[in-house]
Amino acid sequence: KRAREYGIRIGVLPTGVLNAITDVQGVRVGHTTLVQGQEVRTGVTAIVPHAGNVFQQKIPAAVYVGNGFGKLAGSTQVVELGNLETPIVLTNTLSVGTAMKAVVEYVLRQPGNEAVQSVNALVGETNDGGLNDIRGRYITEQHVLAAIEQAQAGPVAEGNVGAGTGTVCFGFKGGIGTASRLLPAKLGGYTVGVLVQTNFGGVLQVNGAPVGQELEQFYLSQQLKDRADGSCMIVVATDAPVDARNLERLAKRAFLGLGKTGGIATNGSGDYIIAFSTHPGLRVPYASTATTQTTTTLTNEAMSPLFLAVIEATEEAIINSLFKAETMQGKQQQRIEALPLDKVLKILKQHHAR
Amino acid sequence: KRAREYGIRIGVLPTGVLNAITDVQGVRVGHTTLVQGQEVRTGVTAIVPHAGNVFQQKIPAAVYVGNGFGKLAGSTQVVELGNLETPIVLTNTLSVGTAMKAVVEYVLRQPGNEAVQSVNALVGETNDGGLNDIRGRYITEQHVLAAIEQAQAGPVAEGNVGAGTGTVCFGFKGGIGTASRLLPAKLGGYTVGVLVQTNFGGVLQVNGAPVGQELEQFYLSQQLKDRADGSCMIVVATDAPVDARNLERLAKRAFLGLGKTGGIATNGSGDYIIAFSTHPGLRVPYASTATTQTTTTLTNEAMSPLFLAVIEATEEAIINSLFKAETMQGKQQQRIEALPLDKVLKILKQHHAR
Amino acid sequence: KRAREYGIRIGVLPTGVLNAITDVQGVRVGHTTLVQGQEVRTGVTAIVPHAGNVFQQKIPAAVYVGNGFGKLAGSTQVVELGNLETPIVLTNTLSVGTAMKAVVEYVLRQPGNEAVQSVNALVGETNDGGLNDIRGRYITEQHVLAAIEQAQAGPVAEGNVGAGTGTVCFGFKGGIGTASRLLPAKLGGYTVGVLVQTNFGGVLQVNGAPVGQELEQFYLSQQLKDRADGSCMIVVATDAPVDARNLERLAKRAFLGLGKTGGIATNGSGDYIIAFSTHPGLRVPYASTATTQTTTTLTNEAMSPLFLAVIEATEEAIINSLFKAETMQGKQQQRIEALPLDKVLKILKQHHAR
Amino acid sequence: KRAREYGIRIGVLPTGVLNAITDVQGVRVGHTTLVQGQEVRTGVTAIVPHAGNVFQQKIPAAVYVGNGFGKLAGSTQVVELGNLETPIVLTNTLSVGTAMKAVVEYVLRQPGNEAVQSVNALVGETNDGGLNDIRGRYITEQHVLAAIEQAQAGPVAEGNVGAGTGTVCFGFKGGIGTASRLLPAKLGGYTVGVLVQTNFGGVLQVNGAPVGQELEQFYLSQQLKDRADGSCMIVVATDAPVDARNLERLAKRAFLGLGKTGGIATNGSGDYIIAFSTHPGLRVPYASTATTQTTTTLTNEAMSPLFLAVIEATEEAIINSLFKAETMQGKQQQRIEALPLDKVLKILKQHHAR
Repeated sequence: KRAREYGIRIGVLPTGVLNAITDVQGVRVGHTTLVQGQEVRTGVTAIVPHAGNVFQQKIPAAVYVGNGFGKLAGSTQVVELGNLETPIVLTNTLSVGTAMKAVVEYVLRQPGNEAVQSVNALVGETNDGGLNDIRGRYITEQHVLAAIEQAQAGPVAEGNVGAGTGTVCFGFKGGIGTASRLLPAKLGGYTVGVLVQTNFGGVLQVNGAPVGQELEQFYLSQQLKDRADGSCMIVVATDAPVDARNLERLAKRAFLGLGKTGGIATNGSGDYIIAFSTHPGLRVPYASTATTQTTTTLTNEAMSPLFLAVIEATEEAIINSLFKAETMQGKQQQRIEALPLDKVLKILKQHHAR
Repeated sequence: KRAREYGIRIGVLPTGVLNAITDVQGVRVGHTTLVQGQEVRTGVTAIVPHAGNVFQQKIPAAVYVGNGFGKLAGSTQVVELGNLETPIVLTNTLSVGTAMKAVVEYVLRQPGNEAVQSVNALVGETNDGGLNDIRGRYITEQHVLAAIEQAQAGPVAEGNVGAGTGTVCFGFKGGIGTASRLLPAKLGGYTVGVLVQTNFGGVLQVNGAPVGQELEQFYLSQQLKDRADGSCMIVVATDAPVDARNLERLAKRAFLGLGKTGGIATNGSGDYIIAFSTHPGLRVPYASTATTQTTTTLTNEAMSPLFLAVIEATEEAIINSLFKAETMQGKQQQRIEALPLDKVLKILKQHHAR
Repeated sequence: KRAREYGIRIGVLPTGVLNAITDVQGVRVGHTTLVQGQEVRTGVTAIVPHAGNVFQQKIPAAVYVGNGFGKLAGSTQVVELGNLETPIVLTNTLSVGTAMKAVVEYVLRQPGNEAVQSVNALVGETNDGGLNDIRGRYITEQHVLAAIEQAQAGPVAEGNVGAGTGTVCFGFKGGIGTASRLLPAKLGGYTVGVLVQTNFGGVLQVNGAPVGQELEQFYLSQQLKDRADGSCMIVVATDAPVDARNLERLAKRAFLGLGKTGGIATNGSGDYIIAFSTHPGLRVPYASTATTQTTTTLTNEAMSPLFLAVIEATEEAIINSLFKAETMQGKQQQRIEALPLDKVLKILKQHHAR
Repeated sequence: KRAREYGIRIGVLPTGVLNAITDVQGVRVGHTTLVQGQEVRTGVTAIVPHAGNVFQQKIPAAVYVGNGFGKLAGSTQVVELGNLETPIVLTNTLSVGTAMKAVVEYVLRQPGNEAVQSVNALVGETNDGGLNDIRGRYITEQHVLAAIEQAQAGPVAEGNVGAGTGTVCFGFKGGIGTASRLLPAKLGGYTVGVLVQTNFGGVLQVNGAPVGQELEQFYLSQQLKDRADGSCMIVVATDAPVDARNLERLAKRAFLGLGKTGGIATNGSGDYIIAFSTHPGLRVPYASTATTQTTTTLTNEAMSPLFLAVIEATEEAIINSLFKAETMQGKQQQRIEALPLDKVLKILKQHHAR
């Protein structure tokens, strides 16, 4: 079960209906999960920002680099142009090239894109090489295309799925997690949704409670000495009309949400945040010959409530990834335990954190 | 009393002897506090990185901009050259110019600087205009020079002193706070010290406990609707041999410490982190004609323990600023209450956070 | 006379009527020039972006740091918020604090700003310490206020005036220069104006002709060995509706214009570009309580002609600063010759560059 | 023939022996050129920084984004960690994924890398879709591996080879170009080498002469209205002991060299500069357990001569790419003429530019 189903209420803002990135209208998520034999524990997760042709109707987007040890392909163009033109794909470190190829293939063959000659595939990754035979590079273009094409609205599978299949977080089994926040109507009624691929370390806190310490498993403790590395990809969606500059600011705040779970962004952790707005009025048409565009966007001042929302949703998405992940055994008999929920819930109760 | 004196233990690493930025050998701190009549509640805090002539013996330094609503003078040169050549001065928003003038004066008249024609004064600020008649601009160059010249090693005054005299944090009286962490000998035995000037908002957490919520005073709650703005200047010192590039990464992690207290870096908050290394082997001599410099610095990989240290020290420094600040009345009868420690301690106990 | 009066035609685009930054409607420029005794050769230049209250009606703006050895105060807030709220002031390196104080004073006392408690003064500088007794700090707040208040539309004084009074460029007397470009009506008919404060070195080229080499005065030649340092402040104004993100891109192209004059951005040169749009539809009202703003801005694609315009205008503004500057003698009998126009014109003729 | 063989002498510094990036000891370059039927005009260029195992002996490196419309994979990790761990590969826009896969394959199978689980492939591109059926994606991993494995020291093939096979520059046939500069012994005797893949537009200048204007072919002229887009990848190598921070500054100056050829970095141009140091004392060992590293690096002040060198070498490399490229016909009968050298030489003579 997810954290909230245990009565854990992170933050002060209400969630969206699904408490998922898919609460942001039009956003769809698809997973391809590869669990084969003893050695293959990996996958692909695709986030499709809207139902149309994303290349033809680009969306405002930004990237914030929390810690750049990682291989986020496509980031510089998003930063320069302030927009995103493909689905976002997450996978393992050594499969970024394959995923780029698949995203390019996907875009080239979409109806309407017959003349397209340039595609900026945005592909992130974390390293699942602890449980997965990552050097085997089992991800194929078909796996990536399947994740994109099967992406759907509604509840999002969490834990050991998609790009989170083989990941490790705070020494426990990590994975995919998601959450959302809904602003009050008088603040616009906007939704912020977050999806994470958790694969990092630090000193785990759950809703403020010192779970990592109580479980005696944290960075620099005996048990975990060298295990804090890894990465965290964070995808932030909002239906608020936010331009690229303010999306970058929003992305930066998600990093604070990671911090609240006890993440410390170690040297070896690729911590990236991708943020985008699905607001229909902000689409950037590819084919347009107009030299100007008229948009209605949030002012700088109006961003602050969204900042709070993204911090809360990121924190909860990370916790959800841990709550939903299950113990997994993988390559070379490596076994990563799920977060021991019974103990954790006891700790949380002790700390009045649920 | 400081947080730790109440048995509050933030994080997993031990503190330095003083639990202050001055645990980093050679670092001195000086305050000028201006409390005059009903209207003047402001001051200056100076951090002097080493006992020598800082202009002649520059030190590696970096700046990370958490949120750039703020007037940190001198940041671009620090970023470009990777070093710092003056004491760091913090004051109120409208007195940055005065402080720059004073720092220039200070450098020009230091023995050995007779030929100096360029000075990069690093001056930060937060806005104390809630309690202080900031438009009156009561800070003089003498006040700034006094803070620099009276800077000393040893325990650091916290709360309503220096640049923290009139600040407000999470709706309570903020101020100056400090803390430090000491790495285990096998990880180098390095010290990381942090000093903060707290003047921001969000949803206060103390060592994980939801104090802001329990006190029903937080961003977007009834009481505090528009009070999360303000700023947080964070100064990070270390004796570890860290070059400018890795100091920037260290600075960025301090932002996570702010996040752990519930700070959300609202639009109007100028959240800056300045980090420097006092390691004697990394001094950058001004007068040298050598075209190369030989240095021994930490590898990327060796930074991770320092990242944990700076997050913990920043969190605790912010909490210390709140614990040590006292209720203050200022301009136009504005009154900002100190954090109600009795209630807070009760909340912390309830949450097993002390 | 200015370069164009000698028949030198830089680039392919036409100039505005004045060939000055003031071709951008509403932009005003003011200078305070200090030439006193043998030792004082300095000044202040103010660029006022529009006729209204700039704090109440902020304008989109960006800063690009070509080389950050320099003390541009206020840059981080412009970058974060994407707007400018004060006149831009240029002066000498050690007078930035004084200029900040004056700009704050100016804003606080403007009608309508009675409640303002935070001012982000944008103050740039170059080091005129070769000719000017810069340590004497002769600039007063009155000098700065005078430059702002006397700013006017129309032709802009160039050469040894204002902040360019004591500067040196390519080993010759530098100063203030300006130029503009006008896009064809079918590309929007926009104007781009540039003003520069030139104080840097390299290998001078005038409209492509190798003037520095022919005069045997260039960086790393016998004569000039250590004289390439210094700085170049570049202010770019446009009436095109360009948002902050694209203004940053525009600013970055101005750096290419500096390169075309033979500037090499040496370590010691503070090369900054500030760009802003005066388009009335993009004003950011301070007092507004609206949470959204509707704007019509140029698309990414429509920026390219402006990129060409700013490169050309920057190149010509720098050349104008050299053509208009006159030989000056200053502190310690230092004498900097004006560019020897007769020789230069001969070289240009030889190279068909006029 | 190359520009210098026609007596064109760009800049004031001498070239290295080969006037090529391979003048930097240890640097090797390999090309795979694909010219097949009427439609395939593309290729791969690999730059291998040293003869050893680059993953095990990483090198200091930096990336500067001139204009981020482009798909440079791997840039964020280079920026974060300050080093490069693979050969640099250039190819066409839609083949970046394939090239990443090949670079990963290359690294995984190098002896000594049997345990490697993370590879940051640095792959740049420009869009050759004018002459090449880019949507056909003819580049295979074998093509990429061949370019890496056949890389060699000595003279570098220029023009229509490798990643420059199908590119267009200033409306003429572009391609691969290279050049180098050698600093005087008293300034360290360092070499700076540059290799470019030219595929951009603007207003062509050759050694200062207005060739684009004289040929009536330039951005915004009748003939070329929409043809300035494209990209320029610039690779800078030096044997000087330069750390990552100063390599970034070096990279930024290369952008000025592009500007001197008349490049304007249009919206659609992906202009990236990758700079690295081959100095043996700066290698970053992968397998090391040491927490510190001792290095001897150039001071900030000592960088300025290198700045001049990289500007000159970049300018000349671009010009060489044009001089060496030959007229090519490609997909859909598209034909791009080579720079008409006879006319150009006449123009240069007229302008005393040779």
